[in-house]
This record gives sequence, C-alpha cells and structure tokens, in this order.
Amino acid sequence: MTTTQKQNEGSVGIVAWHDFTFGETEETALRLDCGKRLKNVVIRYETYGTLSPAKDNAILVEHALTGDAHLAGRHTPEDKKSGWWDDMVGPGKPFDTDRYFIVCSNIIGGCSGSTGPGSVNPDTGKPYHLDFPVITIGDMVRAQKRLMDHLGIDKWMAVAGGSMGGMLALKWAVDYPDCTNAILAIATSPQISTQSISFNWVAREAIMTDPTFYNGDYVTQPQRGLAIARMIAHITYLSDESMQRKFGRMLQNSDEYSFDFSKDFQVESYLNYQGSRFVERFDANSYLYITRAIDYFDIADAADGDLTKALSVSKFPFLVVSFSSDWLFPPYQSWKLVRSLLQNGTDVTYSNIISSYGHDAFLLETETLGDMIRNFLINRYKELTEQ
Amino acid sequence: MTTTQKQNEGSVGIVAWHDFTFGETEETALRLDCGKRLKNVVIRYETYGTLSPAKDNAILVEHALTGDAHLAGRHTPEDKKSGWWDDMVGPGKPFDTDRYFIVCSNIIGGCSGSTGPGSVNPDTGKPYHLDFPVITIGDMVRAQKRLMDHLGIDKWMAVAGGSMGGMLALKWAVDYPDCTNAILAIATSPQISTQSISFNWVAREAIMTDPTFYNGDYVTQPQRGLAIARMIAHITYLSDESMQRKFGRMLQNSDEYSFDFSKDFQVESYLNYQGSRFVERFDANSYLYITRAIDYFDIADAADGDLTKALSVSKFPFLVVSFSSDWLFPPYQSWKLVRSLLQNGTDVTYSNIISSYGHDAFLLETETLGDMIRNFLINRYKELTEQ
Repeated sequence: MTTTQKQNEGSVGIVAWHDFTFGETEETALRLDCGKRLKNVVIRYETYGTLSPAKDNAILVEHALTGDAHLAGRHTPEDKKSGWWDDMVGPGKPFDTDRYFIVCSNIIGGCSGSTGPGSVNPDTGKPYHLDFPVITIGDMVRAQKRLMDHLGIDKWMAVAGGSMGGMLALKWAVDYPDCTNAILAIATSPQISTQSISFNWVAREAIMTDPTFYNGDYVTQPQRGLAIARMIAHITYLSDESMQRKFGRMLQNSDEYSFDFSKDFQVESYLNYQGSRFVERFDANSYLYITRAIDYFDIADAADGDLTKALSVSKFPFLVVSFSSDWLFPPYQSWKLVRSLLQNGTDVTYSNIISSYGHDAFLLETETLGDMIRNFLINRYKELTEQ
Repeated sequence: MTTTQKQNEGSVGIVAWHDFTFGETEETALRLDCGKRLKNVVIRYETYGTLSPAKDNAILVEHALTGDAHLAGRHTPEDKKSGWWDDMVGPGKPFDTDRYFIVCSNIIGGCSGSTGPGSVNPDTGKPYHLDFPVITIGDMVRAQKRLMDHLGIDKWMAVAGGSMGGMLALKWAVDYPDCTNAILAIATSPQISTQSISFNWVAREAIMTDPTFYNGDYVTQPQRGLAIARMIAHITYLSDESMQRKFGRMLQNSDEYSFDFSKDFQVESYLNYQGSRFVERFDANSYLYITRAIDYFDIADAADGDLTKALSVSKFPFLVVSFSSDWLFPPYQSWKLVRSLLQNGTDVTYSNIISSYGHDAFLLETETLGDMIRNFLINRYKELTEQ
C-alpha cells in the first residue's frame, strides 16, 4: 500500500447495531437442516457506508467462530477497542465505506445478539440451552437471506469471510448463486480436516466435563472447561514458528524453573490469559453449537460429494487467499477449492500469502491481504457499474 | 529387510520384570534437580539376551511418555499383547538378543512399577500424590545410572530411545559421556517446541479441571480429564494426512448427521476409545509429572543454552532419525541436533524417513527404522569387539 492510500484511510466512527426479528409464526419460522423450525429469530447486524440507489454496492462480511456483527468503528467514544476488522473497513480502506455499503451480521447459534442457545425459547419461555436445535452453516446463511430481503437487497456485490466466515461465503455461492456477484474466501476450506474435527471434539468434551456445565443449564459459564476449549483452539490459530518466535522457552518470573505445575513458561501464562478473557465474552453452549456446525460443513454435500459439481452454479469471480503457515485451514484446502473453480471455468484470483502467523494471519497480514481485497473489489465494482 | 532376515527373527518369549530398590538412607537417596532427595527408589526393569563376560554388549532402551519396562515378549502365555517394541527386540531382530543384552527400565515418576507419585512416601506412610517432587529427565537418567551400577555395567554399548525416550538417550550422552559407546535418538529433540509446551499445559489443565481430581488425591482416576489429555496428545501423535486417510469424514452409524453432540464422526469415536483405554492403564498424576519433565528438558542447559558446546562431551557415534510428517518432534529439531553434532566432528548417521504416520511413525515404520538400527548397532558391535 502506498503512503497516500494510508493517509486517505479513516474510521467509520461511532456506529450502532440493529436487531431484525422474523419468524413469529410457524409458517415464517426459519427452516433448519435438522428438520426443525426456529421461531422469533433475532439477527443482530451493523452496516457501514451508504446503500446506492441502484442497491448494487452492498457487501456482506461474515465473521469467524467467535466473532460478532461489530466489524468496525466504536459503539461509544469510550470503547477501548474498535470492531474486529477495523483495519479493513472504513473510508479509503479495502472495504471502502465511501464506495460500498457493508453489512455484518452475527450468526444464529452465537451469543452476540442473534438468536442462540442462550435465547429464550418462545414455546417454553425459558432459555433454550441444549434444547436449541443443532444448526448448520447453511442454516446461518438461510437466516442471513431473510436479513438481505429485509434490507431490500437483491444481490450482494460480494460476500466475504475468513475462516468459518469463508465457509458462510462459500455457502452463499452454492445455495444462493443468484444473490451475489462475487465471493471472497479467505483462510477457509470446502470442509475442515479430520484433525480439526478432532480438536473440536476434544474442546467440546472439555466444556462438557467442567463440573459447572450442568448439561448446558449453567448460570455462570463453565469457566475452566470453556477456557481449555479456547486454549486448544488458540494453539491451532498460531503456528509452531510464531509461538517459538514470540515465546520460545521464556519463563515467567526468573531463570529458574518453579518445579511445580503453576504457570512457569510465558506461553502458559499467555494461554491462560487468553482462556480467561474468552470466558468473559463467549458462551459455552454457543461454542458447542458453532463448532458442530463447522464439523458438519462440507460444501460438496450439495452435489453428493462432488466439489466441482457443487461449485458449478457459482458463475462469478472468486478471490481465494490462504496463508503458508496456516495448519488449521492449510493451503492445500484452498488449492482444492481453486482447482474445482478452475475446472468450472470460474474467474479465480488466488494467492497463498507467505506468513509465519498461522491461521491468525488472516487478521494480521492486513497490508498484503488488504491490497488484494481492495483490488478485487474495485474490479468488481467497475464491472458492475460499467455494465 | 530380506526375507531371510525375517525368517530368522524370533520372540524373546516369556519374560519377567525385576525391581531394584536403592536410597534407603538420606545419604544414598536420589539427588534431584529440584534440590530434594528421593528415598526408597524402586526401579522396575526387564532384560533380554545375555550379558557378555566382557560386559560390552549391553544396550539401554528408553521408553516414551506412557511406556514401561516391558519392551518385548510376554509375561504369561495368556498375555494378549507383547511388549511395546516387540517388533524390534528379539533373536535376529534389530535389537538382536542373540548378540546384545537389552535393558529397559520404567522411568521414575511413572506408574508402571518404578517409584512415582502413586508410590508411598516413606516419610509419611501415605502415597505422595502431588507431594511427589517435580522431577526432570536428568533425574530419571540419574536413577537409571544406579541401576547400571547395580547390574555391574560400566559402559553401555548404546543408549537408544524414541520420543521422550530419545531425550533420555541424549541426557545420557551429555551427563554420562563416559558411560556409553553410542546413542540412538529417534523422533526426538534437544528441546520440545513452544507449541508442545502449550499442548502439555492444556492437557494438565484438563486433568486438574476434572471434578474427581481432588488436587491429586483421587481414589479412582479422574477419567474424563485424563481422557481429554490423552486425546489431545493422540492427535499430536498422528498427522493431518494419516487422520484424513484413516477416518476422513466417515460417520459412525449412517449417512446422516445425528444433529447432536454425541460421537457422530468415526474419528470422534476412535479418540474417545483411545481416551477411555488410556485411563485404564495410566495414572493422572504421573501424566502431570512426566509432561512437566518433558517441558523442562533442554539438552543445551548443560552449557548455558549452547547446544553444540553441551554435546561436545559426546565423542561417540550417533544415529539420529526423524520422520517427515512428525509435527510433535518435527524434523527441523533433529536437523538442529545433527548440525551441532557435526560441528563437533561427531560421527552421525542421520535419516529423515518419509512417512505419513506422524510422530507414531517411530513405532510403525519398523522395516525402514529397523534396518537402520540393525546396521548401526552391528557396526558399533564390530568396532567394539575388534578393538
């Protein structure tokens, strides 16, 4: 990025969220892949920029496992942190709010405003907890389609997402191919690896083993179990190299080992901190539901396991980005996706960004990734507005 | 391996273990790196083959984290399983009991016969549990040196080990360079990675979070916590590729997802089985102590972090073997070891065996690894007996 570009970047400033509710009746309720229906669905979302009169500049940005609708800016001037992808979204930024209308919505099953296992079941007047139906990535997207209709948008200029967010983007591409003009699939996969399914399994076991889990009916979070789940996940977000470089074998307090089981190495303290911070902001039941949805996701399911065939309906440009040291969503998974797209003659821009940050690179390599997103979107915008 | 070699291979047959006890007094007690002393130390060990009159054919084989002294053969004819490295140890096998006298001893801190946290503290008459001192790999080797003296052996022909066993072998090389003529360091490292320290931390957290752990004073094993620890470890023993190949996304019972949190994928059921089997044979407190010892291990500590200098005392041949898909003890760690040995002018045979089995390859790639061990040992034997 040039210095001029940087200077022109700004913040979206103070933003507010909105809640959209639908499905008050059995008929309008959200149909789920498990066969059940979800009533009184709330979708929390935020928007940035202005929808054009032609409604052709709307971009849907999907968040990752533990993300939320708060993509950019601050809710109050006192907020210490801005939205989770603030580097990428704002005036002059890659998702340029001077040009595009950006929408971000919290997934169903989550715990950040949209309906999830912590919400009240309208049929019982009590929180769902583990009575919440097991949802899929497809269900999350189906709920977002209702929001799209509510916003009066017929076609997204693009749907973009990293990690699990990329899975939602791919699901839009296959389930609603007439509703988007482009897909940005970043650090994601057509299906997660067996190894990732395994880590998700162990994480859920850790949550459910916590003595304060009470089969999902906890009043306060099952802190230790949820922290263990987060610590396992956090290790998979980093890379062997980045952990080595950041922490190595550095000790907490001295040059001597403590000869006990307390936090001796700095990396142990770091993980512990990540675990305990996570418990303050995330819900254990939501963690169960969302990881299950990730396990179940296989974009090839739409065509009985034939990935190329499943993607054949997606006749619009793709930007696919992987990161060299990402072992949670390894580059070979993106290659598989790109190969299938190319077999269909789809317009694909692909890059494997060399980075030592592991899966977290998609949130950290903002310069390189930002330039790719910026250029890809500008080209799509030109194509659309010159049509 | 040729067919003839295979045909000449046999079993060591029915074997028995022995217990060696030492350190009844404060003076003879085992000095530990933490500064404490360990009294009434029991070392369980097994031997195979015959010690030569010159006592120059003795090989010490070190076991891995959850291994034991039962290296080969069966304890009774009814035993369903033979010792953990039966493929490698026996008449005509790489560790050829027709030629060598093989010793394997259970590490202190363990739970398979040698003194560990489950043993009775002679000062209190009660089990140590978490009062057991935090031990190191150096302590384990120092205890083995007592066994060596007891057996009347002055110098091992070789010390061999895989994984944590390789760490013990390296420790012999540096702490007792006059006591061995060769080292076999397989799928091991001069120090584990920050990532591995992290997984060990999470595993211990899982054990200590189990409501039945009772700060180490459990009567029955904290099953769920220990199973979670084992499942995490088990994932790190396999590779992404081997898991994908063996389990992929195969489901347990049908083509349909169960839409719940039970064992849906075959890999979930497999991990669960591994976890529950492990609880039957291993002690949670031992798991805490041994993983801590692994964390603390850094062979370069002997020379203030200078690996080459630390290894400069080891003037005998090394066989170093790594496995291409091993991400728990990645090949780069063996390269680091080999580089330092070469800088010292040490005689090193090194191979990175191409295998998709991950860390488990050291137990599975028996043909390729077996040939390397066989040849390396024969050469050492010839050198020694021709001197």
